[in-house]
Parts: sequence; C-alpha cells; structure tokens
Amino acid sequence: MLIGPGKSLDPDKYFIIVPDQLGNGLSSSPSNAASEQARSHFPVVTNRDNVAAQYRLVTEKFGIGNIALVVGWSMGAQQTLQWAVSHPDRVERIAPFCGTAKTTPHNAVFLEGLRAVLTLDAAWNSGDYDGQPVAGIRAFARVYAGWGFSQPFYKQTLYRQMGFGSLEEFLTGFWEKRFLRRDANNLLSMLGTWQLNDVGATPEFGGSLESALGSIKARALVMAGQTDLYFTPEDIEAEAALIPDARFRVVPSVWGHQAGNGLNAADTQFVDAEIKNLLAS
Amino acid sequence: MLIGPGKSLDPDKYFIIVPDQLGNGLSSSPSNAASEQARSHFPVVTNRDNVAAQYRLVTEKFGIGNIALVVGWSMGAQQTLQWAVSHPDRVERIAPFCGTAKTTPHNAVFLEGLRAVLTLDAAWNSGDYDGQPVAGIRAFARVYAGWGFSQPFYKQTLYRQMGFGSLEEFLTGFWEKRFLRRDANNLLSMLGTWQLNDVGATPEFGGSLESALGSIKARALVMAGQTDLYFTPEDIEAEAALIPDARFRVVPSVWGHQAGNGLNAADTQFVDAEIKNLLAS
Repeated sequence: MLIGPGKSLDPDKYFIIVPDQLGNGLSSSPSNAASEQARSHFPVVTNRDNVAAQYRLVTEKFGIGNIALVVGWSMGAQQTLQWAVSHPDRVERIAPFCGTAKTTPHNAVFLEGLRAVLTLDAAWNSGDYDGQPVAGIRAFARVYAGWGFSQPFYKQTLYRQMGFGSLEEFLTGFWEKRFLRRDANNLLSMLGTWQLNDVGATPEFGGSLESALGSIKARALVMAGQTDLYFTPEDIEAEAALIPDARFRVVPSVWGHQAGNGLNAADTQFVDAEIKNLLAS
Repeated sequence: MLIGPGKSLDPDKYFIIVPDQLGNGLSSSPSNAASEQARSHFPVVTNRDNVAAQYRLVTEKFGIGNIALVVGWSMGAQQTLQWAVSHPDRVERIAPFCGTAKTTPHNAVFLEGLRAVLTLDAAWNSGDYDGQPVAGIRAFARVYAGWGFSQPFYKQTLYRQMGFGSLEEFLTGFWEKRFLRRDANNLLSMLGTWQLNDVGATPEFGGSLESALGSIKARALVMAGQTDLYFTPEDIEAEAALIPDARFRVVPSVWGHQAGNGLNAADTQFVDAEIKNLLAS
C-alpha cells in the first residue's frame, strides 16, 4: 500500500526490504520447520528474535550500515519499535503505526480469547493435526471480526465498499478466508510473539518500558487508528510521549485497526503523506 | 445494587417486581422446559415475548394499572425499551442503561463470535449434551472478558479492587466462574434473543426503529457507560435522540459495560442518583 513509484516508499529512491516475520509461514515457522522444531515443537519467538534475524539480513546479506526508515503496521509496528530500541545507532527514522511497544493487558485478554478458541477445536489435537482445524479457525475468524474493525464501520456497512453484499458474506468472504489460508500452529506462534511483545524486556533495560523507549535515537512518527479497538490511540499516544523525538498522529478513520492495512484509500493516503513528511525531514 | 432502603428503588416506597428473563434459567428456559421444548428444542424468544409475559404478570397476577418506572441494565435495558414501546399508556417512566433498542451490527458480530465459540466444543453436541460443554464455556468466557470491561480497566488492573490478584485469576475467578454456572443452551437462547432485539420489529411499527422510539410516551432517562465496547455511548445517544422526552446521561467510568452492573460504587451511585431524579419528576 505504501510501496511504489510516487509513494512514500518509492523503489526509485530507496532500497526496500520486506522481511516476513518468524511464524508467518514464509520465514521459519511451525508449518515449514525441520521436523524436530516443526508444529507444536516450534520455539517461542519474540520480536527481539525477529529483529535479530532482520539485523543479520540487513548487515550480513546486504552490507547496509544505516537504515533511513523502519516502518510497520500492527506486529510490524512492534518490530519497528524493537529495531529502534535494539539498534539506536543504525536507525535514522521509524514509523510504527497501529501497534504498541508493549502489549497492553486488554490486548493480552483479546489474544487469550483467540488462543482459547483455536485450541478448543478437537481437530487441533495439541498442534499435531493432520488437516487444519477448520472449525476452530472459522470461530477464531468470527471472534477476530468484532475486534478488527470498529463499531461505526459495521454500522455504516462499509464492508460494502470492499465488495461484500451482506454482513454474513463479509464474515465468511473476508474474515474466514483471511485465516483459513493460515496454518493453525503458525497463528498460535504469532499470538505468542504478540503476547510477549515488550521492548522493555530487551536485556539492557531490565523490564523498563520507559527506559527502552527513552533510549530511542531515531526520529519517530508514531500513528494510531482513531477507532482501533486493541491498539488504542490512548495507549499509543502514551508510549509516543516516552520517545524523545516523536510526532504522534491519529489516522481519522472508522476502519478500526484496519485503518493501517491499505483497505481504505483515505487512510492509506493519510499514512503515506505522513511518512513522506518524515522521510523529507 | 439499586434496591434497598434509601436507594432509588426503595421497597418502603415502591412495589418492586424483578422478573427473570426467558432463557435465563429461572423463568422458562432450555434447561427447565418440558421435554418437547427442552434444550435445543426451546423456541426462539424475543424481547416482545419477555415483555408479553411480564405484562401478564403485572396486570393479571398483581392487578397493577400504571407502572411508575421500568428499569434495566443490558438486556434489561432492551426489555425496558420494549415495555415503553409495547405499552405506552402503562409506563410512566423508563430508565434503560447500557443497552440499546436495536442490536447494532457490530454487537451482532460480537455475539456471532460467542455463538461460534460455544458451539465449537464437541461436547456441545448440537445442544444434546450430557454434561455441560465446559471447555466451550471457558473459551466463551475468555472471549467475553475482552468485551465486558474496557481497555483502561485492564490497564489500571482494577480487577484488584474486586479481589483478584492477577489477570489470570480474574479470567478464571470472575469470567469463567460467571459462565460455568450457566447452562450452554440457556446462554445460546439468550444470545438469540439479544441478536433479534429490535423495538422496530413490534408489528405496528413495520420495522421502523424511528417510529417505535418516537411513539414512547414515558419520560425516559437513557444512560450509557462511557467505555462500553458493545453498547457504545454513541449508539445509545443516537437512539435516545429519537425518544420524545428523553434525558441522556453518560456514566463516567472505565468499567466498560460493567459500569451498570453494580461492581463499582461510584458508577452505582451515579446511576442511583439519576434514577432518583427521574422518580422525583
């Protein structure tokens, strides 16, 4: 949504790297790991692990010294903040949006609900399934649906703009489809990464979110979706206030958490324009 | 929480009737119905059905003509609004709080998620279970937990005020306990009533929420919890604006939907004082 000629992440101007996160199905994941680490045996992954792997990719594979911008949405925002904390002298700018540096207790409850649903399906079988636990993934998707967009998004039937004729079609054609192409153990692995998300847990900060965010040297553009139900503007603004050189912006949108996901042109233009400003600074 | 000497609903001043709603386990419910209507064979129940039964209780059993006040929280608020629409000449005042006259699309999505979870448990067995589907009810409770209180409630660890030492204790000791004493078919029956909630579906209003709310003759005090995630202040305020003689008030609280449930003294005092004012008018 942000990559392309004339967009903020313009390949004619920048060398752009888009790594898949651990557990997401392309990078090492429960679904593709060697047998002793496959499926339910996949190790617990933190965002520090993700950033450690990405750091090696950037420095060892590409030989890059400084990074003009680290940017990401949602769990990508988590990794962006971890980058700025782990490598303060490498990262010139960051633009995390719709994500936090530490998973909030309410967000953890939301994730706990998702975990309870997926693991409830008998077909899940403690992760040693033959076929995917389809019913569990469908229920997971339906629970997620209430969190992923805002109350006014549903009231205004904005899913019609996405081509869905009814609420049920949207639940099936967007939400269930979105998760049915995933592997259940991969979903659970990423839930675990999300639950553990906390830049303050970076060893040198001894558990202090304040110290970790206060150590960031990058110029930061921190954005939140106005109606995001699990990465709330209030939570994100409170964290942004702990970053020395941060500009906090709210995407004026009723698309909830999905305001940052490229589904709505106005939201995407807002995010794109803000990142252009950041890159020009 | 509101009934007692010196409180708004003072038994020394008023004759107070507290009916259990259909499906809730005391009134006729899947768990206690005669065999041909028991369990999954229990008929679909609407709030109009609830109010029709309550109307007969009030008029035929007690011979009461006019009602000074109909009051209720959550699904009780739904029934309160249905009372005012179905019997405009019987009801002098209403005080619905933390509930709507018509279930919103987002609220329906939340309920759809809950239904998907409970019916996912193999032990549910399409409603013909021997023992309760305990794992399904636990997962149901964990999903509900994210919706029932607000994001800042969890951030401020206000569950400690309720005697729970940790988030996990709260999920288990409050949420799971709250639903494990319920019958699964009863829960599903009430979910169905909630999903169908719409005063506009009262036959003489032909589906028009506006006409139904516009017909209310009672003096109305309509309250919302400031941080309620599924009966939002915005949704409730929009409905209150359609009631001719309505006062809209927001309970200033981070207790989410539970602001109306008597768990927090400040919220309860706010609601109680407002109802006292209404009764004095």
